[in-house]
Amino acid sequence: MAVVPIGVVTVSDRASRGEYRDLGGPAIEAALARILTSPWRAERRLVADEQALIEAALCDLADVAACPLVVTTGGTGPAPRDVTPEATMAVCERLLPGFGELMRAVSLRAVPTAILSRQVAGTRGGCLIVNLPGKPSAIAECLDAVFPAIPYCIDLLGGPFLETDPAVCRAFRPKA
Amino acid sequence: MAVVPIGVVTVSDRASRGEYRDLGGPAIEAALARILTSPWRAERRLVADEQALIEAALCDLADVAACPLVVTTGGTGPAPRDVTPEATMAVCERLLPGFGELMRAVSLRAVPTAILSRQVAGTRGGCLIVNLPGKPSAIAECLDAVFPAIPYCIDLLGGPFLETDPAVCRAFRPKA
Amino acid sequence: MAVVPIGVVTVSDRASRGEYRDLGGPAIEAALARILTSPWRAERRLVADEQALIEAALCDLADVAACPLVVTTGGTGPAPRDVTPEATMAVCERLLPGFGELMRAVSLRAVPTAILSRQVAGTRGGCLIVNLPGKPSAIAECLDAVFPAIPYCIDLLGGPFLETDPAVCRAFRPKA
Repeated sequence: MAVVPIGVVTVSDRASRGEYRDLGGPAIEAALARILTSPWRAERRLVADEQALIEAALCDLADVAACPLVVTTGGTGPAPRDVTPEATMAVCERLLPGFGELMRAVSLRAVPTAILSRQVAGTRGGCLIVNLPGKPSAIAECLDAVFPAIPYCIDLLGGPFLETDPAVCRAFRPKA
Repeated sequence: MAVVPIGVVTVSDRASRGEYRDLGGPAIEAALARILTSPWRAERRLVADEQALIEAALCDLADVAACPLVVTTGGTGPAPRDVTPEATMAVCERLLPGFGELMRAVSLRAVPTAILSRQVAGTRGGCLIVNLPGKPSAIAECLDAVFPAIPYCIDLLGGPFLETDPAVCRAFRPKA
Repeated sequence: MAVVPIGVVTVSDRASRGEYRDLGGPAIEAALARILTSPWRAERRLVADEQALIEAALCDLADVAACPLVVTTGGTGPAPRDVTPEATMAVCERLLPGFGELMRAVSLRAVPTAILSRQVAGTRGGCLIVNLPGKPSAIAECLDAVFPAIPYCIDLLGGPFLETDPAVCRAFRPKA
């Protein structure tokens, strides 16, 4: 079974300058390690909150590293430096609004500021790109909420067959 | 009382080639027959998953057949051939995001892959266009969820007065 | 403590012609008076349902009157004259879809026609613009739902520190 590369992109000015340790990327990897039982490896990127840099990282992961899934953390709020959704929308051919709707609804149970998150998801060729919030605690919550739909989405995009631990995440594949 | 034409558009490569029977269109008609008590008739179209063909069908139903309501089934997922939302967005002057949000929320109670549906609704002149999923079971569920708002929407667009069976669907019209 | 100007925009053909009394603007001011404990004053505008006029009012309030928050009422439905979301989208640099999602979800508990509201929120420079429905009863309901996130949003945009009455609205500011 081939090892599936999964893009893990931390978007943060301060972490990219080494001013503090990236906590978001490792939180994504911990969540994926918990969820997935089929072989995978992280393709890590750490970029500043610059739209052009984020777009370049996403395109590289989708087009060159051939990741069927790229997950980002950071840069989804309303602050002027937050441009991760803009970068994601710019490189995706189509958006999947249900991801953002569900993640905001889930986060809203914890904090009323969940409505400030502009996180999106979309596809670029055979790659699904999903924005997650910046806070490590919200990362697992959001990824757990949407992950049951991700393996089937990747099937539809012609990608590899991802398997999950049903005790953690019950991936759903409708009968064709 | 004039018989109101309602567009029923099945979008499916295989059904349009006759490779299998269209189940979505009849499911929409069955749901409408259950809901509506005022006279109506279906204006049926069966098209392949080609954006130009879907757009042509929608424009014909809205502009020539003068349907105040057009309902589609199929082509709303993330697969490369799914282009019904793109066609709908291209021919609508304005979108009504609340339809997609509610339909995804309702479908999500049944299947976690509901977030993969990119279904939209919008208006083209006096016509309301609503995308429904492809699966017959999800069609009734989604149409039942949004239909209480549809007669008033058509009122606001200057269209005919639709009446529903209150035991099935309680159409809501706010006092002006 | 400086008095913060908050834009209150009523969009209504009939109210702007003096054919009936503006009820939406005063309903917004009553809700803000209930919620806020820090000093503020209303910057009022009353405009017809014309996209160019609405855009001009929003730009004036954001750019000249330097309001960190502008709230509109009216013009968010699907009727041909309803263009408040179009005007808001035209003047905002970025949209915050969570506001519309939450306000529609809250309104949906009261009326099924909530899905017809196309209300949006977004930012223009340091100003947060939020569309509310036209009906006075829905105004308080929607503003109460989203206000807990507004002071922190304005913090992130570099604006003044708004304080709320915790018995009415518990503004949430995550620890940095």
